[in-house]
Amino acid sequence: MEGIRTDLAVEQPEVNQEAIRGVTLDSDQVEGIDKTEIRITAEAEERMNRKPGTYVTLESEAIRKQDTAMQRKLTTVTASVLRQLLVEEGIGEDARGLLIGLGNHMVTPDALGPFVMEEVLVTSHLFELEYEQVANGYRSVSAFAPGVMGVTGMETSDIIHGVVKETDPDFLIVIDALASRSLSRVNGAIQLTNTGIHPGSGVNNKREEISKEAYGIPVFSIGVPTVVDAVTITSDTIDYLLKHFQKHWEEKDRPSNILDVASNPFKRSNLEDAALPDESKRRSVLGMVGTLSMEEKTSLLKEVLTPLGHNFIVSPKEADGFIRDMSLVLASSLNEALHPAVASGEGEAYR
Amino acid sequence: MEGIRTDLAVEQPEVNQEAIRGVTLDSDQVEGIDKTEIRITAEAEERMNRKPGTYVTLESEAIRKQDTAMQRKLTTVTASVLRQLLVEEGIGEDARGLLIGLGNHMVTPDALGPFVMEEVLVTSHLFELEYEQVANGYRSVSAFAPGVMGVTGMETSDIIHGVVKETDPDFLIVIDALASRSLSRVNGAIQLTNTGIHPGSGVNNKREEISKEAYGIPVFSIGVPTVVDAVTITSDTIDYLLKHFQKHWEEKDRPSNILDVASNPFKRSNLEDAALPDESKRRSVLGMVGTLSMEEKTSLLKEVLTPLGHNFIVSPKEADGFIRDMSLVLASSLNEALHPAVASGEGEAYR
Amino acid sequence: MEGIRTDLAVEQPEVNQEAIRGVTLDSDQVEGIDKTEIRITAEAEERMNRKPGTYVTLESEAIRKQDTAMQRKLTTVTASVLRQLLVEEGIGEDARGLLIGLGNHMVTPDALGPFVMEEVLVTSHLFELEYEQVANGYRSVSAFAPGVMGVTGMETSDIIHGVVKETDPDFLIVIDALASRSLSRVNGAIQLTNTGIHPGSGVNNKREEISKEAYGIPVFSIGVPTVVDAVTITSDTIDYLLKHFQKHWEEKDRPSNILDVASNPFKRSNLEDAALPDESKRRSVLGMVGTLSMEEKTSLLKEVLTPLGHNFIVSPKEADGFIRDMSLVLASSLNEALHPAVASGEGEAYR
Amino acid sequence: MEGIRTDLAVEQPEVNQEAIRGVTLDSDQVEGIDKTEIRITAEAEERMNRKPGTYVTLESEAIRKQDTAMQRKLTTVTASVLRQLLVEEGIGEDARGLLIGLGNHMVTPDALGPFVMEEVLVTSHLFELEYEQVANGYRSVSAFAPGVMGVTGMETSDIIHGVVKETDPDFLIVIDALASRSLSRVNGAIQLTNTGIHPGSGVNNKREEISKEAYGIPVFSIGVPTVVDAVTITSDTIDYLLKHFQKHWEEKDRPSNILDVASNPFKRSNLEDAALPDESKRRSVLGMVGTLSMEEKTSLLKEVLTPLGHNFIVSPKEADGFIRDMSLVLASSLNEALHPAVASGEGEAYR
Repeated sequence: MEGIRTDLAVEQPEVNQEAIRGVTLDSDQVEGIDKTEIRITAEAEERMNRKPGTYVTLESEAIRKQDTAMQRKLTTVTASVLRQLLVEEGIGEDARGLLIGLGNHMVTPDALGPFVMEEVLVTSHLFELEYEQVANGYRSVSAFAPGVMGVTGMETSDIIHGVVKETDPDFLIVIDALASRSLSRVNGAIQLTNTGIHPGSGVNNKREEISKEAYGIPVFSIGVPTVVDAVTITSDTIDYLLKHFQKHWEEKDRPSNILDVASNPFKRSNLEDAALPDESKRRSVLGMVGTLSMEEKTSLLKEVLTPLGHNFIVSPKEADGFIRDMSLVLASSLNEALHPAVASGEGEAYR
Repeated sequence: MEGIRTDLAVEQPEVNQEAIRGVTLDSDQVEGIDKTEIRITAEAEERMNRKPGTYVTLESEAIRKQDTAMQRKLTTVTASVLRQLLVEEGIGEDARGLLIGLGNHMVTPDALGPFVMEEVLVTSHLFELEYEQVANGYRSVSAFAPGVMGVTGMETSDIIHGVVKETDPDFLIVIDALASRSLSRVNGAIQLTNTGIHPGSGVNNKREEISKEAYGIPVFSIGVPTVVDAVTITSDTIDYLLKHFQKHWEEKDRPSNILDVASNPFKRSNLEDAALPDESKRRSVLGMVGTLSMEEKTSLLKEVLTPLGHNFIVSPKEADGFIRDMSLVLASSLNEALHPAVASGEGEAYR
Repeated sequence: MEGIRTDLAVEQPEVNQEAIRGVTLDSDQVEGIDKTEIRITAEAEERMNRKPGTYVTLESEAIRKQDTAMQRKLTTVTASVLRQLLVEEGIGEDARGLLIGLGNHMVTPDALGPFVMEEVLVTSHLFELEYEQVANGYRSVSAFAPGVMGVTGMETSDIIHGVVKETDPDFLIVIDALASRSLSRVNGAIQLTNTGIHPGSGVNNKREEISKEAYGIPVFSIGVPTVVDAVTITSDTIDYLLKHFQKHWEEKDRPSNILDVASNPFKRSNLEDAALPDESKRRSVLGMVGTLSMEEKTSLLKEVLTPLGHNFIVSPKEADGFIRDMSLVLASSLNEALHPAVASGEGEAYR
Repeated sequence: MEGIRTDLAVEQPEVNQEAIRGVTLDSDQVEGIDKTEIRITAEAEERMNRKPGTYVTLESEAIRKQDTAMQRKLTTVTASVLRQLLVEEGIGEDARGLLIGLGNHMVTPDALGPFVMEEVLVTSHLFELEYEQVANGYRSVSAFAPGVMGVTGMETSDIIHGVVKETDPDFLIVIDALASRSLSRVNGAIQLTNTGIHPGSGVNNKREEISKEAYGIPVFSIGVPTVVDAVTITSDTIDYLLKHFQKHWEEKDRPSNILDVASNPFKRSNLEDAALPDESKRRSVLGMVGTLSMEEKTSLLKEVLTPLGHNFIVSPKEADGFIRDMSLVLASSLNEALHPAVASGEGEAYR
């Protein structure tokens, strides 16, 4: 079983905590969807430990709430972000695209890439074999799921290199399931980038990056967090716990009974964005652990759980439905973004 | 999505912490499998908040390690426990059994019951239609997956009642996916009982119990924990953290650097069974939270996560493979236990 | 493996060949879909060997051509026929429906019923548990896949009887995969009736009928032919062969070379509706076999193939996709027909 | 949907009808399995329109009868044939193999190749990453399902070329679903060759061959017929019909009633191997059609059905189970044949 491959720029602590030269961050709401656009220049590459480029994250509960109408809006917004990234990178309407769905189609939370490949509109063979029959408004698109090393025995990057060399596309779009550093983003966010995929140094695998540097053509990526690990769940929960008490103190001055929380059903947004208590309060609630920084805490939890074999990577019980719905959203978005002839809202009909 | 239905007797705190009148607990190792047999008499019913009867738990990493040889041993041992329960309940070799696979076949971690129904040997129609052709050594077995209320719209117990009334079996065996109170038992334990299934009072659903009281015939159950919730993961991790420091203190007198744990790769068994530190040490590491009892801690975490919508029920990323392997183990065990003609080790061939 | 269960009224030879007292037949085209409505009164029951009632058949290549736009039209027309049947039978807007999906979800061409059950909107539990929350314009609908005897070991009618008795619905709709007597209707027709399901006497199975007589409430059925047998394929092909030569003779007076057909690409409709040659010509092309009636020919082919074990029941290679698409059409139609609040064309969004 | 790709040497009319220089044919029975070995030298290539090499066909009803014990025998025999082909081609025990599973994993009768890839033991990554840990008795094996052009948009041979160039294996084994020219071999035969795959000229597709000529390394193939077309079914049935009457005439001198066949339940083997009647009798039963050669008959039927869109390619209704069982047989055979450490009969445990 392969490990966690990549993660979300929007979850990187540096992005949220301070202004860094060479990093701009724009937040917006479009059709009820939270959109965050992070642009990183070469100047900030080292500090951020992340490739320069544009990282757009869309956050929505459309999938988790199984809300068809919201999923259609998410499709439209995803298509428009993807279209913008293509235009900014100078991809013309006739440029030939190769879609690559990473992951293992037999492991549901890792199957997003392969599932999108099953659903997306593919046209390149029509151009090859019967060029005159392809209507205006379509470009040449191929799609491909290279599998994972545990199943093929081969480096995934070897397979991709081979296929790219033989078929010579003009650009790549890589679709992948990601790990999240936050419980609340699992199946709840889509990250689109123009930077390709760069397996982080911290992640212990030897696969090479899939990027413009490696392939000589623009590489876009679409990633969806589908799993978290036990360390993340515990670390998130500890933070919620501290914020929970802080809320208590703020609202009640002093809690009469620190366990009496049933009467305080804080709304989600309140608590997620709430401040942590100061250090002395953190220490009183959570002792030494309460005084650790997020990085120290994560590191400590990893060192406890990993030797036990207990840093399980998990997905929500309902993953089967979530992944199928998300695949449909992404495939429909790709259809709308890649082919001018596919009208907005009609991407689904081209599966 | 239905919630968590039942849990493991072996995880009940009372069972492990003290001797209770009317409860006996035997532990054993068979073929490398940990076997725990808990017998509860009527005298202890109220104290344990659990039906009187026999609860046998088998624990093995055969599934999680994807070890075919160990899975075959687990099959054999499961069959022998089931056979023993049938005999103790006076089920004769000709008694007609109805197997009921609870759960939702479209939600992988909840699909264990339906998957076992797909795999198990079914014979009752042969007895009905062509009695003379059924070889000696087989009994009449039917199998049935009633689905879940979210998909059928009907109370599952209504469906089962209807089928039992029409087909009049001599005994029931109910197969179900359970929630675990421990990370380490997910897909790693099988509980067999002669008590049926009793949705706990703490679990907020209205389905009636499936038991001898409700149906007038013996009801056995086979349950496998396939999910945990975020509260359990956090609570387990906090305990591991405390034990981790205790180990440190014991071995080093004083740690030079409490974060320097890489040099102490405690073996799993050591830490799982290790003692917690005393209260003052627990308080220094984890503050107020370190002083809470397991019940208080769980209750506190639930009250923090539930209003946030973040007490996710999760399963390991690899659930698809685990559930399929476990289904095969259970179906093969049922074949071996129910039909004398199916030789030990040959249950798999009768799928 | 269960055999073929039922068939299409529109394929019955009596319907097409002659006027029978008590049988009316109306043909129409709606939205590009061929609609045939056959009404059979009690007077014609014996002659037709078919229950009195209304049989509406819709024929369309929407599924086989994988044409999403045509599938949406088929959905709308199917919903309107079903709504009309419900109204004619006096089913009120608040009447509670139980949907029953016959067939084996593990055998693709037989999985139509179970797949529709997975997709259709189910509401009855909402009425039971939280009545006040159900919006206006929805009725109580349950859904249920009883499985097949080879997998459950039980008579399917026993399971249905049990569930109907326990849940007491006001009407039933039974969805099933059928056998076709014509190659051209496989996955290309939908039959809706108000007569329930009556396993024919010619089909060798012992399951009881699912009808108003058996259950005391109106029973509707929706059937789609998904398989044919080798006898049908051969018999159809022999007829096409004869018509092919007849066409030749008509157009060329005499064929110079009876095998020179490449130059005569008859359009489908021409040949399907073409007349057979007269008997002497049939005999010259196909000898004694050319002189047999359709019934004699079918009977002869059955007697040749059946002892060989070669009267295979087959489905098109592409069955997986066809059955999934047809399931979506039927589930969407049911949503639109059963709930006034589901707008025409929006049934798909309620999956 | 791709068309039919290849077929069985054993079904080629030339093989059975006459002795050809450069063709040897050996028939045998091993463990109840019919084994036919055809060796074609360069001398006979043109006459046979088939690449020189060895074609071994195993025929067994193990899959269609769902007989686990017979399937295990089939596995063992298949492994031994494959091992012999490898040895004859000079493949050493350390030679590195790449398995290629052709076909579409979403179209069950075409999914055999991809399904085998999911099940087979893959080891090459272990050699790359952790060479010292691989036990003796295993070779390096990779596995790969390139998909089909209708889903990827790319020529399958382009994908394979790319992967072979990047990973440089010593030999290839290609697994594919075939079309059969005989009803009785569908899911009932396995063809193993050392000649690779050569899409026939009669089959209208543009994919290049996968062969030693194309790749410079030995290419073996394993093919299983999983579909037939309507022409084949009709043509076979017409032959059975003629043989049926011949049998009648032989046994009864003259039939009193040519339709009275119920009293003559010929055993299968009798009729399959029976002779056709002489021409005048064939003409009396089947007219002009009865006088056609097999090739003329097939050609005529194709010309009738193809313009109608009715030369359906079909598979047995039970294809889902057959293909899954056959995948297990092939994957287990490959494990036993490729790795000396995998004991005979234990290939299944290495999935």
